Amino acid sequence: MSFPDNIKRPTLLLDEQKCRKNIQLMAEKARNSHLIFRPHFKSHQSVAIGEWFREEGVKSITVSSVGMAHYFAEAGWNDITIAFPVNQREIHEIDHLASQVHLNLLVSSLPSLRALSENLTNPAGIFIEIDTGYHRSGLTVEDADLIKLLVEACNGDRLLSFSGFLSHFGESYHALNVQEIKQVYDHGVRELYQIRAFHQGGVNGIISVGDTPSCSVLDLFPGVDEIRPGNFVFYDVMQLYSRACKTDQIALCLAVPVVDINPSRDEAVVYGGAIHLSKERIFMDGEEMFGLVVHLTDEGWSDPLEGCLVTQLSQEHGVLRLDTTTLKSLQPGSLIGILPVHACLTADAMKRYTTLDGNTVSMFSGIK
Amino acid sequence: MSFPDNIKRPTLLLDEQKCRKNIQLMAEKARNSHLIFRPHFKSHQSVAIGEWFREEGVKSITVSSVGMAHYFAEAGWNDITIAFPVNQREIHEIDHLASQVHLNLLVSSLPSLRALSENLTNPAGIFIEIDTGYHRSGLTVEDADLIKLLVEACNGDRLLSFSGFLSHFGESYHALNVQEIKQVYDHGVRELYQIRAFHQGGVNGIISVGDTPSCSVLDLFPGVDEIRPGNFVFYDVMQLYSRACKTDQIALCLAVPVVDINPSRDEAVVYGGAIHLSKERIFMDGEEMFGLVVHLTDEGWSDPLEGCLVTQLSQEHGVLRLDTTTLKSLQPGSLIGILPVHACLTADAMKRYTTLDGNTVSMFSGIK
Repeated sequence: MSFPDNIKRPTLLLDEQKCRKNIQLMAEKARNSHLIFRPHFKSHQSVAIGEWFREEGVKSITVSSVGMAHYFAEAGWNDITIAFPVNQREIHEIDHLASQVHLNLLVSSLPSLRALSENLTNPAGIFIEIDTGYHRSGLTVEDADLIKLLVEACNGDRLLSFSGFLSHFGESYHALNVQEIKQVYDHGVRELYQIRAFHQGGVNGIISVGDTPSCSVLDLFPGVDEIRPGNFVFYDVMQLYSRACKTDQIALCLAVPVVDINPSRDEAVVYGGAIHLSKERIFMDGEEMFGLVVHLTDEGWSDPLEGCLVTQLSQEHGVLRLDTTTLKSLQPGSLIGILPVHACLTADAMKRYTTLDGNTVSMFSGIK
Repeated sequence: MSFPDNIKRPTLLLDEQKCRKNIQLMAEKARNSHLIFRPHFKSHQSVAIGEWFREEGVKSITVSSVGMAHYFAEAGWNDITIAFPVNQREIHEIDHLASQVHLNLLVSSLPSLRALSENLTNPAGIFIEIDTGYHRSGLTVEDADLIKLLVEACNGDRLLSFSGFLSHFGESYHALNVQEIKQVYDHGVRELYQIRAFHQGGVNGIISVGDTPSCSVLDLFPGVDEIRPGNFVFYDVMQLYSRACKTDQIALCLAVPVVDINPSRDEAVVYGGAIHLSKERIFMDGEEMFGLVVHLTDEGWSDPLEGCLVTQLSQEHGVLRLDTTTLKSLQPGSLIGILPVHACLTADAMKRYTTLDGNTVSMFSGIK
């Protein structure tokens, strides 16, 4: 019996070879540019996949929650940045973590810094989050005075130390081509330098950036000290469409059973819906879509099938619009594959991976 | 310490009183119309909440996967319809279930019916799925000949028996008002009758419908034998916007810690993102939104705060756009509430509920 024959339900396939190659390539790029490589582990959330990074010499990591930091600390990672604004309600958990590992935290307000200063009993590094255009969290160049205050408060604290300026250039995820990605990066780094320039002589922190699109398309990162990409470990359809990866770099595929065929609409219905893929979508030619369709093979999966899309998702249902040849090759009971629009959200929804030799790779399953 | 003070991380609050009232109201409506009430348990996926239905006299249920059917069968439910096209790859699990409970399955193709006929060793009821306009899965009035064949094949089978015609009027979820919901319902029932009319004398199955919008706004269900609503157990912002529920019927609220404030954009950033709420969204005045914002109180939560919206979600981040008063009342460390756009997907993402007296209500956590 060949590999896919054993699959009964929506199953998140992980191509270990592609994944390891993605890791190797990024680690090498960081080494060549003498950058600290602090990959974001929120994309895979897996101790086992973390080990593939360790084999490439990675020693420092990024996570997006205190729970996730704890999970990786238990697995021996001892240099962790939580790249999410400090959640004061977890201050005791944060302090406990800071007693175990070298912990960096993200701050963009005086109340948060004060809460840390007053409550931590263990040392922690502080990154100040800078928003250079994504407009999610963080301070901007307009907040120069506050930024200065925060840096000084860190420098004057007994346990806190200023680690540097950290930014996530999230706008790059909406870029449509390499040129746009580069513009986002150049603009962001320029603003970070502008901010650092306010602190003549007194600032010794690093500059940390690291969205997957920029890190994938750039070869040189002048002026930057650290990169923190995460999604590149798997890549996905969103990255493919902004030209940040090639088709054969996508390392995740959701295998789904076909359960209904509607020839009059050129559609197949699959067992694989919003609770498996997430409802992340992109627009292609003005139309909303939730994934690309591939054939499964003994070695993994094919290139995306031209003109075949996931057009609709409800809780367990997925609707695929297919070309005539593909449609005719399927019947209820067949198996087909979907490349996710957003690998991180699909991984989080599925909570486990299955490698192409059928092994289960587990991931963080604590309270998120 | 008051109730919300204990909350550290995104926490899905369940107002048991509202939830039980939603259940009572729908059960009463079904009783008054002499309908079989077969609520869809995919919305809550919880044995504990299932018991609240049992207290209202509910004996038969709907689920959307074989795994979920197994979970509820273990909890003593013995009349289960899997309202999802038969997944042939789980045929042995289906057969095992059919040996334990009275099981109804959903079929819309000859290959699927044949697979059941050839492989089941236990009896099962067969619903034929009819698509009256949602265009997801199922056969249409145009497929009269195939429908006839399927009914005859059931009737001629040793273990399979024809249960009736089942439809999900999913278009009603996109209705903008009560009138549109009623139109969807009337059209759907008319088509189901047209289909039943093909089978003069020879058809004794029931007609089963049951989207939450129709079941909520209609008082009488002429010609229908069974309703299967699910979402009404919690309701949500989507239902609120199509006028299928009132604000005080929404029984789920995601409590989230505030982690950053951006006064220049009237925004707060919360720990609560796509992995907690799901990325389900609706459009309000042409703008995409992911939830409404409420204040948390000792008794639960307030009405939605006028002009306050969840405007952006990434993995763990949520961005709220707030009015000046609300914004001024918050600081990093505060707690605020979000009413989800789609309760079922939020529940599935969170995997547990917390009642207003702080108890945890668990839910199905098997492979989905």
